Amino acid sequence: MEKYSPGILQYIPFFYVIWSDDLLSASEVAIVEKALEQDNSLSKEERDTLFKWLKRTNPPSNKEFKNWKHTISKSMVKLVESDTYPLATFSQKVVCRYNDECPFNENLKYIEVNLGIQPNHYNHLFDVEVIHQKTSHYYNAHELDALLKGKHANVIDNFRSFLSRPLFDWNIHRDKDEFRKRVLEQVQFLGENGYGAMAYPKSYGGTEDMEGYAAIFENLMYVDGSLAIKFGVQFGLFGGSIQKLGTKKHHDRYLKKTGEAKLLGCFAMTETGHGSNVRGIKTTATYDSKTDEIIIHTPGDKDNKEYIGNALHAKMATVFAQLIVNGKNEGVHAILVPLRDDEHRLLPRIKVEDNGYKLGLNGVDNGKIWFNQVHVPRENLLNMYGHIKDDGSYHSDIQNPNKRFFTMLGTLVGGRICVARAGLGGAKFALAIAVKHALRRRQFNDNIKIQEDLLLDYPTHQLRLTPLVASAYVYHVTLDRIMEAYCNEDHTDKRKVETQVAGLKSLITWYANDAIQECREACGGKGYLLENRIADLKGDVDIFTTFEGDNTVLLQLAAKGVLSDFRAEFNSAGFSSVLRLLTTQLGERLSAINPVYTNKTDKEHLYNPKFHGHAFNYRTKRLTYTLAMRIRDQIKKGVPSYQAFLKVQTHLLALGKAYSVELAYTLFSDFASTLKDEKNRLLFQKLGTLYALYEIRKDAEWYLEQGYMGRTKSKAIRQRVERLCSELRPHMEVLVDGFGIPEHCITAPIAV
Amino acid sequence: MEKYSPGILQYIPFFYVIWSDDLLSASEVAIVEKALEQDNSLSKEERDTLFKWLKRTNPPSNKEFKNWKHTISKSMVKLVESDTYPLATFSQKVVCRYNDECPFNENLKYIEVNLGIQPNHYNHLFDVEVIHQKTSHYYNAHELDALLKGKHANVIDNFRSFLSRPLFDWNIHRDKDEFRKRVLEQVQFLGENGYGAMAYPKSYGGTEDMEGYAAIFENLMYVDGSLAIKFGVQFGLFGGSIQKLGTKKHHDRYLKKTGEAKLLGCFAMTETGHGSNVRGIKTTATYDSKTDEIIIHTPGDKDNKEYIGNALHAKMATVFAQLIVNGKNEGVHAILVPLRDDEHRLLPRIKVEDNGYKLGLNGVDNGKIWFNQVHVPRENLLNMYGHIKDDGSYHSDIQNPNKRFFTMLGTLVGGRICVARAGLGGAKFALAIAVKHALRRRQFNDNIKIQEDLLLDYPTHQLRLTPLVASAYVYHVTLDRIMEAYCNEDHTDKRKVETQVAGLKSLITWYANDAIQECREACGGKGYLLENRIADLKGDVDIFTTFEGDNTVLLQLAAKGVLSDFRAEFNSAGFSSVLRLLTTQLGERLSAINPVYTNKTDKEHLYNPKFHGHAFNYRTKRLTYTLAMRIRDQIKKGVPSYQAFLKVQTHLLALGKAYSVELAYTLFSDFASTLKDEKNRLLFQKLGTLYALYEIRKDAEWYLEQGYMGRTKSKAIRQRVERLCSELRPHMEVLVDGFGIPEHCITAPIAV
Repeated sequence: MEKYSPGILQYIPFFYVIWSDDLLSASEVAIVEKALEQDNSLSKEERDTLFKWLKRTNPPSNKEFKNWKHTISKSMVKLVESDTYPLATFSQKVVCRYNDECPFNENLKYIEVNLGIQPNHYNHLFDVEVIHQKTSHYYNAHELDALLKGKHANVIDNFRSFLSRPLFDWNIHRDKDEFRKRVLEQVQFLGENGYGAMAYPKSYGGTEDMEGYAAIFENLMYVDGSLAIKFGVQFGLFGGSIQKLGTKKHHDRYLKKTGEAKLLGCFAMTETGHGSNVRGIKTTATYDSKTDEIIIHTPGDKDNKEYIGNALHAKMATVFAQLIVNGKNEGVHAILVPLRDDEHRLLPRIKVEDNGYKLGLNGVDNGKIWFNQVHVPRENLLNMYGHIKDDGSYHSDIQNPNKRFFTMLGTLVGGRICVARAGLGGAKFALAIAVKHALRRRQFNDNIKIQEDLLLDYPTHQLRLTPLVASAYVYHVTLDRIMEAYCNEDHTDKRKVETQVAGLKSLITWYANDAIQECREACGGKGYLLENRIADLKGDVDIFTTFEGDNTVLLQLAAKGVLSDFRAEFNSAGFSSVLRLLTTQLGERLSAINPVYTNKTDKEHLYNPKFHGHAFNYRTKRLTYTLAMRIRDQIKKGVPSYQAFLKVQTHLLALGKAYSVELAYTLFSDFASTLKDEKNRLLFQKLGTLYALYEIRKDAEWYLEQGYMGRTKSKAIRQRVERLCSELRPHMEVLVDGFGIPEHCITAPIAV
Repeated sequence: MEKYSPGILQYIPFFYVIWSDDLLSASEVAIVEKALEQDNSLSKEERDTLFKWLKRTNPPSNKEFKNWKHTISKSMVKLVESDTYPLATFSQKVVCRYNDECPFNENLKYIEVNLGIQPNHYNHLFDVEVIHQKTSHYYNAHELDALLKGKHANVIDNFRSFLSRPLFDWNIHRDKDEFRKRVLEQVQFLGENGYGAMAYPKSYGGTEDMEGYAAIFENLMYVDGSLAIKFGVQFGLFGGSIQKLGTKKHHDRYLKKTGEAKLLGCFAMTETGHGSNVRGIKTTATYDSKTDEIIIHTPGDKDNKEYIGNALHAKMATVFAQLIVNGKNEGVHAILVPLRDDEHRLLPRIKVEDNGYKLGLNGVDNGKIWFNQVHVPRENLLNMYGHIKDDGSYHSDIQNPNKRFFTMLGTLVGGRICVARAGLGGAKFALAIAVKHALRRRQFNDNIKIQEDLLLDYPTHQLRLTPLVASAYVYHVTLDRIMEAYCNEDHTDKRKVETQVAGLKSLITWYANDAIQECREACGGKGYLLENRIADLKGDVDIFTTFEGDNTVLLQLAAKGVLSDFRAEFNSAGFSSVLRLLTTQLGERLSAINPVYTNKTDKEHLYNPKFHGHAFNYRTKRLTYTLAMRIRDQIKKGVPSYQAFLKVQTHLLALGKAYSVELAYTLFSDFASTLKDEKNRLLFQKLGTLYALYEIRKDAEWYLEQGYMGRTKSKAIRQRVERLCSELRPHMEVLVDGFGIPEHCITAPIAV
C-alpha cells in the first residue's frame, strides 16, 4: 500500500467520496480547486497531485482508488454522523492516526459545506463502522412550524392544546351510529367553545377569521377525518350558506345558534341524478303567491338530495332548488327548510334515508332527502342575490342568471380551500407516521454491519417519501396564500381566485391520496392496521377527490378559466388577434429555448428558481395556445362549442394541472424568498427545488416531446431529484416535526 | 347551400368525419382513394372532386366543410349506432332523402371497416339526434369468457354456480368477530366440498389441479376478499407447506384433514422485526437429542410471529425458525407446532394476540404468536429438504444452505401467483362495476341533446377505464401461462419462473390497486358507498402489494434474477466478456433505431406487435446493460457488492418492472396470435396493442431520453391510445361481461 503525506492524506476521504459520485459537475470541481488553492498547508507537489486527481478527462486509476479505500479502512477510524462536519472531522482523525500533528483544516470544511456533501451520501462507501443517527438537529422543528403557522400561530397553538382533551382521544369505531354520536358530541363541544363561529362576524359569536378557521380545520384531521368533515358541514357549508347567501334576518335568527351547534343543519345541494352539474338539479321551489309560501318538491325518482352530510342529525337544511316565481324558472336558489321538530321527529312530507356504510368517514351521517310538496315561508329564501318582493315578483341585482348562479356558488369557494387543507393535513399526518416508522424500522443488512439498515436509508424509500414531504410544505404555503386572497375584500378578481381554487383543490387532494397510499405501502403490513392511523386516513381522504367538486370537473373549470381571458372573443374577428398576441408572448419564450438551454445540466441552472418558473410557465402557455388553436379549428368548421370542448377534454385536464402546479410553485417560491433567516430560507428553497424538479420529472415526456428539455437534461433532473432526497435524509424527522402535529395526536404505535 | 350530386352526396358524411379527425394518416387516405377507384357508381368528375378533397396539402375550405355539415343537418336523418355499418347506412339514408335511388354502397362499407371508424368517433359531429346504444353486440361476452377460462372452463363454471348458495351472499360486516365467524363457515364449507384440496394429490382428496385452484381462487374475490385470503392461508399456505415441505408421514396424518378444513392451520413466517428478510428471522427451533424433541422459542421482544392469518382459529401452525442441531444453525426450516387443544384452548407456553382491525380483510383473523420454549416431537419437522436423522444429526440432500433456503421458499411461489390472480379478480370486479355504472349514469348535457351524456361517452372517462380493462385481459392470460409453467414438472428452469413470478406479482398487484382506485373515482360518491363493493375491494386489495413478498423487494429480486445469468461472473475476468456479449446484442438492436424508425408514426407501425415487442425488449436489455455497467464500475473501485446494489436500487426497480411488462406482453401476444376465430383474435390483438401503447406511453420519458422514440412518435402514441379507447367504447360492456363475473355476485346497485 502506497503511503501518503499528511497533506494529501487529509484530502483522501474527500477524493474518495467525490470519485464515487456519478454527479460531479464542473462547478463542483471548481469548489475543490478553490479549496486547494486556498490551502496553505499543502506543498506545491501535494497540490499538483491533488489537482491531477481532479481531472475529469483523466480520472484516477482504479488502483489509486483502491489504495485510497485501503488507506481509509486501515485507519480504523469511525465516521461519526453526528459530528458537525462529519467528513472533515473524519479526515482529521485519519491524519491523526498516522501522524502526530493533525489540525482541523478549514478548507476541508469549505468543501464539505459547499458541495453539500451529506453523510448518507458516503457512509455506504466506508466499510468502517458508521455511527448512525436517525436525525440531524441542524434545523429546528419549532422554527419550521412557526414559519408555517405564520400570523395564525396563536389561534393554532391554542387550538392544538384544546384538542388534548379526552373527548378528542382517538378510538376505533366500527359501528356507525356509535361513531356518529361521538363525532356529534365533538362538534357540539367545538361549537360551544367558539370554534364553529370563527369565520362569522363578531356580532354572531365569531372572530371573522376565515383564515384561522381553515388552519384549525386542517388540524382537526389529526383528531379524525369524520370530525373535520362534520365540522365543515355544520359550520362551513350550512352556516356558511346562511352567512353568505342569507341576509340580516337570517343571520339574526340562525347564525349564532348555528355557530354554537345548537341549530344543526345540512347543505342539500347534490342530487342522485345530478352530481357535478348543479345547474341541472331538479328539485323545485315554487312560490305560491296565495299563501306567500315556497313549496319544495322532489319531482322524480333520482331527484332526491343525495349524500347529504348531517342529514340524520340536522334540524334544518339549506336546500338548493330551481326557484319558480310566477311560472318562470329563476334558476338555482337556496332555501332554508326545517327537517325535524324539537323531538327530532321528521316533519311531514319529508323522507330521509341513511346512506349507510362508506369506505371512510363513517362518523358522518350522510343521507338522502326527499321533499313532497313541503311548504316554507317566503322569508326562508336565502335572498342575498335574488329575492321575492312583497308584491310576489322576483328581483335580483344581478340581471344575468348565469352570473347570478356563479356569484352564489362563488361564495362557497372557501369550503373548497378547506377541503384541500384537510387533505393536506391527512397527507402530513401520514407522512409524519411513515417517516418516523422508517427511522425506527430496520430491514436486511450488510454482512459487515451489525445492525440492519433503517428503512429510510434505502434510496427507494427516500425517493418515495421525500418529494411528498417537500410538496406538503409547498402546498401548505399555497393554501395559506390562496385563502388570504379569497378573504381579501380588496381583491378585485374573485373569478380568478375561484379558478385557482378549483385547480388547487384537485391538485392537492390527488396529491394527498397519493401521499397517503405511498405511506401505507412504505409502512408495509403495519400501515394496514387501523391502530397506525394511515388506514383511516386512506379511507377518509379518498372521497376528497370527489366532493366539493369532482376533481376532473374542477380541473376543466380551471382550464376554462385560463382560457376565459380570450374566450369572449371566440367566434369573433378579435379571436385571431388574441391568438396573435399569445403567439408573440409564446414566441418570446420559445426564443429562449436554444440548444444550450435545453441541454443545460449544471446544478446552478437546475436549482435556479428562474428555470423552474420558466419551465412551468412555458408549459401553461404552450398548453393554452395549442388548446385554443384546436378549439378554434373546430369552431371554424362549425362544430358547436360544447362538442369542441368535449373533444379536447384530456387537453383541458393537462392545462388545469399545469396551471395549478405553476401557481403553487410561484406562491411558495415567492414566500420562501421573503424568509429573513438564511438557514431556513435555504431549506425552504431546497424544498421548493425538489418540488419543482420532481414535478418537471413527472411530466418529463411532455417537456421532451416539446423539445423544451434535451435527453441529458431530463436524465440530469432525475439524478438531481434522487440527490436532493438523499441530501434531505438527515433532516426528515425535523421536517415532519415541522408540521406541528400535536404529539398527543400521534398515537400510532409504529411512530413512537 | 350548394347541392351535391348523389355520387358525391353519399361520400359527404365520410369526408365530414375524416376531416374532423386530427389523425388522418397517409395510409388512411390510401384506403379512401382505393374505395373511390373501385367505385363504379362515380362519374369521372365526381371522382376528381372527391380526390381533390382528400389532398392533405390543400384541405377543403372551411366553407366547403360547413356546407357538408349543413347538408347533413338539413337531411334530418338520424344516425343509428346499432346499425351494422352505421355510417355507410347513414350515408345511404341521406342520399335517399334527396334522391329516388339510393342503393347501399359497398365501397362506403369498405372505408368504414378499414378505417376502423367507430360511431362514437363521430356522433358528436352531427347535431342531428343520434340514437345511442350503451353497448354493441358485435362481440359475444360468453365467447370472451370461454377464451379466458380455457381448459379450466368446467371447473370454473361449476364453482361459479356453487357460489350462488346463500352462504356466499354478500353482506356488510363491521364487527370483526362476527365477520370472521362467517368467513370461517364459508372456508369450512368450501373444504367440505373438495375445493380446499384441489391442488393436493388425489390420494388426499384432491384433484392435483393447481391451475384450477388458482382460477377458483380468483373467483372467490367476487364473493369477498377476506374469504379468498383466509381460503389461501388455510389450503394454500398451511396445507401447501405440509404438501411441499413435508413428507409422506405428514401428508398421511394431516393433508386430508387440512383440505377438508377439519384441521385449521396457519403459516407463521413473518416476524414483527423481520418482514421481508425471512432469512433473518429470529425464532429458534433447537433440537434436544435427550428428549428427541424440537424446542420452539421466541427469543426477543420483536421476534414474535406477526400478522399471521388464521392465528385465532388455527389448531396448528407451520412455524418457520432457525433450526439448531447440535449447536449448529442449519438455517430456516418449517416445523409443525400445535397451538390449541380440542376445546380450542391455547396450549401452554404459547401466546396469541389479535392484530385488531385493519384497513380491509377484517374477516381474516390475523394475530401475533409468541413461543416460550415449546416442545414438539422431532417428526414435526417438515423434512422434505432437510431432516434430523435418528442418530440426532442433521442431513440435507442440498448441501448449500443458501440453495436449500431458496428451494424451500420456491415451493411456495404458487401462492404468489394466486395473490396476483386475486388482485386481478378485484380489479376485474371493480372495472365491471365502474363500466356498468358509466353506461347508466348521465352527466351534464349539450343544449341540443335532450339527454345528458353517458359518463362513458366522455373521452377522459374512456381513457380512465379502457386501458385498465385491456390490461386485465393481458394479465389474465399472463397469470394463466405462468401458473402453467410453474406447474409443469418438465420445466427445468424453476429459478427463472420464480424470478418471473416475483416481477409479475408486483406489477399486477400494483395495477390492481390503481385500477380499483380509478374505478372508485370514476363512480364518484357512489363508489364510496360499501354497498357498491368497490370500497371493500380497495381496502382488501391494498395489502396485496405488501404480503407474500413486498412489491419493492420482489421487483429487486426479479431484476437480480435478470442479472443472475452473468452475476456469477462479477469480479472475475469473465465479466467483461459477458458485457461484451451484451453490448453486441444491444448494438444489433440499437442499430435498428435509425431516425426513420424513431419517428415512424403510421398506424401500421404503431399497431405492429413487432414494434411493441422490440420496444419492450430494448428497454429490458438497455436497463440490464446500464445496470451491469454501473455495478461493475462500483465493484472495480472496490465497493462491496451489497453497497453497490444499494446505490442502484431505483435502477433495479425500473429493470424489474420493464422485465415484467415485457413478459406479460409477450405471453399475451403469443396467446392472442393462436386464437382461431378471426374476429376474437383481432379483438385480443387490439387489446394487446392498447396495453402495449399505454405502457410505452407511461414510460415515454425514458424512451425519449434514450432516443428510442422521437417527439412526434411519442405524441402519435398518445393520440393512438386515446383513439383505441374510443374505438373500444361500444364494446366496453361486452368486454367486462367477458370477465365472467357471476351475475349473483354483482350486487352493486349502481351496476344494475
